[in-house]
Amino acid sequence: MKVPYKTYLTEQETPVKWYNIRADMRKKPFPLLMPGTGKPCTEKDLEPVFCKELIRQELDEDTPYFDIPPAIVDFYKMFRPSPLIRGYFLEKALGTPAKIYYKFEGNNTSGSHKLNSAVAQAYYAKAQGLKGVTTETGAGQWGTALSMASSFFGLDCRVFMVKCSYEQKPFRREVMRTYGASVTPSPSMTTAVGRLINAEHPGTSGSLGCAISEAVEAATSMPGYRYVLGSVLNQVLLHQSIIGLEAHTAFEKLGEKPDIIIGCAGGGSNLGGLIAPFMGEKLRGERDCRFIAVEPASCPSLTRGAYAYDYCDTGRICPLAKMYTIGADYIPSSSHSGGLRFHGMSTVISELYDQGLMEAVSVKQTDVFAAAQRFARVEGILPAPESSHAILVAIEEALKCKEEGREKTILFGLTGTGYFDMKAYQAFNDGTMEDFIPADEDIARSLEKLPKL
Amino acid sequence: MKVPYKTYLTEQETPVKWYNIRADMRKKPFPLLMPGTGKPCTEKDLEPVFCKELIRQELDEDTPYFDIPPAIVDFYKMFRPSPLIRGYFLEKALGTPAKIYYKFEGNNTSGSHKLNSAVAQAYYAKAQGLKGVTTETGAGQWGTALSMASSFFGLDCRVFMVKCSYEQKPFRREVMRTYGASVTPSPSMTTAVGRLINAEHPGTSGSLGCAISEAVEAATSMPGYRYVLGSVLNQVLLHQSIIGLEAHTAFEKLGEKPDIIIGCAGGGSNLGGLIAPFMGEKLRGERDCRFIAVEPASCPSLTRGAYAYDYCDTGRICPLAKMYTIGADYIPSSSHSGGLRFHGMSTVISELYDQGLMEAVSVKQTDVFAAAQRFARVEGILPAPESSHAILVAIEEALKCKEEGREKTILFGLTGTGYFDMKAYQAFNDGTMEDFIPADEDIARSLEKLPKL
Repeated sequence: MKVPYKTYLTEQETPVKWYNIRADMRKKPFPLLMPGTGKPCTEKDLEPVFCKELIRQELDEDTPYFDIPPAIVDFYKMFRPSPLIRGYFLEKALGTPAKIYYKFEGNNTSGSHKLNSAVAQAYYAKAQGLKGVTTETGAGQWGTALSMASSFFGLDCRVFMVKCSYEQKPFRREVMRTYGASVTPSPSMTTAVGRLINAEHPGTSGSLGCAISEAVEAATSMPGYRYVLGSVLNQVLLHQSIIGLEAHTAFEKLGEKPDIIIGCAGGGSNLGGLIAPFMGEKLRGERDCRFIAVEPASCPSLTRGAYAYDYCDTGRICPLAKMYTIGADYIPSSSHSGGLRFHGMSTVISELYDQGLMEAVSVKQTDVFAAAQRFARVEGILPAPESSHAILVAIEEALKCKEEGREKTILFGLTGTGYFDMKAYQAFNDGTMEDFIPADEDIARSLEKLPKL
Repeated sequence: MKVPYKTYLTEQETPVKWYNIRADMRKKPFPLLMPGTGKPCTEKDLEPVFCKELIRQELDEDTPYFDIPPAIVDFYKMFRPSPLIRGYFLEKALGTPAKIYYKFEGNNTSGSHKLNSAVAQAYYAKAQGLKGVTTETGAGQWGTALSMASSFFGLDCRVFMVKCSYEQKPFRREVMRTYGASVTPSPSMTTAVGRLINAEHPGTSGSLGCAISEAVEAATSMPGYRYVLGSVLNQVLLHQSIIGLEAHTAFEKLGEKPDIIIGCAGGGSNLGGLIAPFMGEKLRGERDCRFIAVEPASCPSLTRGAYAYDYCDTGRICPLAKMYTIGADYIPSSSHSGGLRFHGMSTVISELYDQGLMEAVSVKQTDVFAAAQRFARVEGILPAPESSHAILVAIEEALKCKEEGREKTILFGLTGTGYFDMKAYQAFNDGTMEDFIPADEDIARSLEKLPKL
C-alpha cells in the first residue's frame, strides 16, 4: 500500500502516557541550582514558583512514563493527534529519492506545539486549587496556548509579552485577550524588576529574559498564583514527548523508520519532544538515527555557546541551569524567529548534544525564508519562521540524498504556522530582509560574564 | 462505540466525484442572462471570460456527478479530508441534549473552504493551456486560495483586492505575494472600469462589485487569461460539494444523521457545498432535514432582498443572475465579515429558498462575535467572523433543544479561522463594535434600481 499523504492515529492509538527521556540517559542532565545558595533545587525550593505536580515531573529523572490525566487526554482530542505528513509534493519538486515526512503541529489556534504543554500546566495548576498562572511570551505562541488552556480550565492568566512583540504583533495580543488573558508589555512598571530594568535601560523594547523575571515576581507575590514556562524545562519536554510518541506510532503503522530527525531549537521544547522516543531507542542501543538541531545564526547557543551553568532570566531570580548558552546578558539581534531567541537550551538537549548523540547547525534567516516559501508553494502550508529552520535543513539533507542517490527517510518537525509573521514574510518578499550573525568577540564578551560557581 | 471528537475519512473513503445538486432539482435555477441582449448565456458567450470546462460545469443542470480529475484529488490530499468534529465541549458548556457536529474547513493556509474551488479552477485553466487567471477578493480568503492553487500549477495570478481590505489587511496581501500572486488595490487605475469608478467616486475604498468588474476586464483584455470567481456560480457550488459529501460519508460511518444543517451565507459557496448531498436526499424524497442559511444583518439578501434578475458586478459587464439581491448598487456598510458582503446570492440557493426548501435568518455582528468567543474558549478554534454566523445559530438551536428536552443532531459549517480578523476581535474585546442594520427605505431605494427585463 502506498503511504497516504497524511497519517492520523485513531483515538484508541493515541498515547496516554508521556515519555521521560531522562530515564534512559545513563549520564543525566545536570540539576538546576538555586540562585542564592548554588545548591541543587529541592521540591521545597521550587514550591513558591511552580505547581507541585510539575515540580515532581521536573525533578524525576528515573520514571520512564507518566500517565496523562484523562482531562488532558480529552483536551488533546481537540487538536490532536496531529498528522504525520508525507511530503510527496516537496520530494517531487526536489527530485530526491529521499522520503520526507513531517509532523505538523500548527493546526490549532495557538499555531504551534506549545498547547501540548500549556494544557498540562494549566490542568495541574487548577488541580492544585490555584487561582491563576503567570508567564512570559516572546513570539506569542506560548502566551496564546496558555491563554487557551487557562480559559478552558477557568484559571486567570497573566502574560508578560516582550514589549517589541507586543507592539509588532497586536493581533497575537488580541487572540490572548479573546481567551480572557491579561497581556502586559514587558518590562512593565507593575513589578519591581520591571521598574528596575526600565530605570536602567530607558526605552528598552524588552527581552524574553526580562519578561521571565517579571512573570516569576508576579507569581510569587500574588497568593494562589504560580509561574509556568513554555520551554527549556524538563517538564515541558516531557509533555512535548506526545509529538514524538505519535510520530513513532504512525511510523510503526506505516512500517517505516526515520533515518534522520530534524527540529528547530530555541529552548528545545519541540525538538526534545519530537526526538524523545527515537532517542530513547538510540540510548537503549535498539536503533540508531541521526538527530539534527537547527538554530538561528543570530542566536547560536549549541553551535557557538559554552556548556556551563547560567541564569535563565535577566533578573537572575530563577534557578541556574547547566546548558549550552551564549550568556544570559546576551541580547540577540532582532530576528524574526522570536521563538528561537532564547540565550540558552534545555538541559536535556544540552547533555545529549554534549555526549555526541546529536548534531547541531545554525542557519541564516534569508535562507530560512527562501526554504519557507519553497515549501509553502508545493506543500500548501505557510510555515512559521521557527519551523522553517527545520525545513531548510530537511531540504538540504534531501538534496544530499539526491546527489548520493540514497533513499533515506527524513522526519522533521513542522512546529507551527506563520500567520502572525507576515511582517517578516513581507521583508523577505520585498528583498529587505537582513541576516544577523554575532561577532566572535561579542559572544566571547558575553560568555565572560557567565556566573562563577 | 462513543463517537470520536474528530472523524477523518481515509484516502480510500474520500469522494472522487463532485455532486451537482441541480440534477435533482425539478424546478431548476434560472439561467444567467447576457448583459447586452438579455438572452440566456451560451457556452460561446462565456468563453472569453471563463475556462471551457468550467463553463460546461456552469451550464450543465442534468449531470448529477462529475469526476474529480486525479491531479485535483491529489491536491485535495494536502488539506482534505477535513475533520467532522463532534462539539462535545460546546455541548457540555451549553448543557444541551443536542448533538453538535461541525465540519471544519479552516485547516489550510487559505484559512477557509475557498481552496476547494480554487484548485479546480486553476487546474482547468492550466489544462486549457492558459497563462494566468484574474480574480477579485474581499476578505482575502479567496485571493489567498487562488494564489496557492495558481502557484502550484504554475499559473500567473492577478488579484484585485477591495481597497479597504488591501489597506486593513496587509498581511493577507503578503500571504498572496508569498505564493507569487500580484495584488492590486481596487478600484485601480490599471483598468478602464477602475479609472471610471475612481473618477466618479474619488477616494472610494472600493467594493466587491467594483473589483469583479476590474478582474473581468483584465482577463478579457490579456491573451491567455481568464477570470475566475470564488462564490455565487454553479461551478463553485459543484466543487464545494466536496464538503457535504465528506460530511455525509462521515455521518454514515458514525451511524448518525443530521436533523438541522446550518451555514453562513454570503454568495452561498460554503452553504451550497455543505448541504448538497443532504438537500439531494430531501429533493429525492428520501430524507427530510432542516437547512438554515445565516446572513449578516448588514447585508440581508435572502431575508430582506428581492428574488429578481440583477447584475453581479458594479460595472455591469458580467452576466445577470436571478437571485435574492439587495441591489448591485447597494454598498453594505462596513461589516467585519468581508466574506458575507456580497449583494446577491447563488442562484441555486436562491431557488431552493424560494421553493421553501430551506430557511434563512439574519444576525447582528455583536451577537456573532459573542458566539465566536464562547466557541473559541471551549472548542479551542478561533473562528472566522463569517463562520461565526453559523456558530451563533447552532448555539441558539442547541439551546432550543435544551428548553424542549429534545436530542436533535445539528451540523454546522465552520468555514474558516479568524487569524486575519483580529482587528474585528479587538473591537469586540474593547466593547467598541457596532451593529449595522440597513433601513427599510435604503433597501427599497436600492431595489428600485434593479434592471427592468
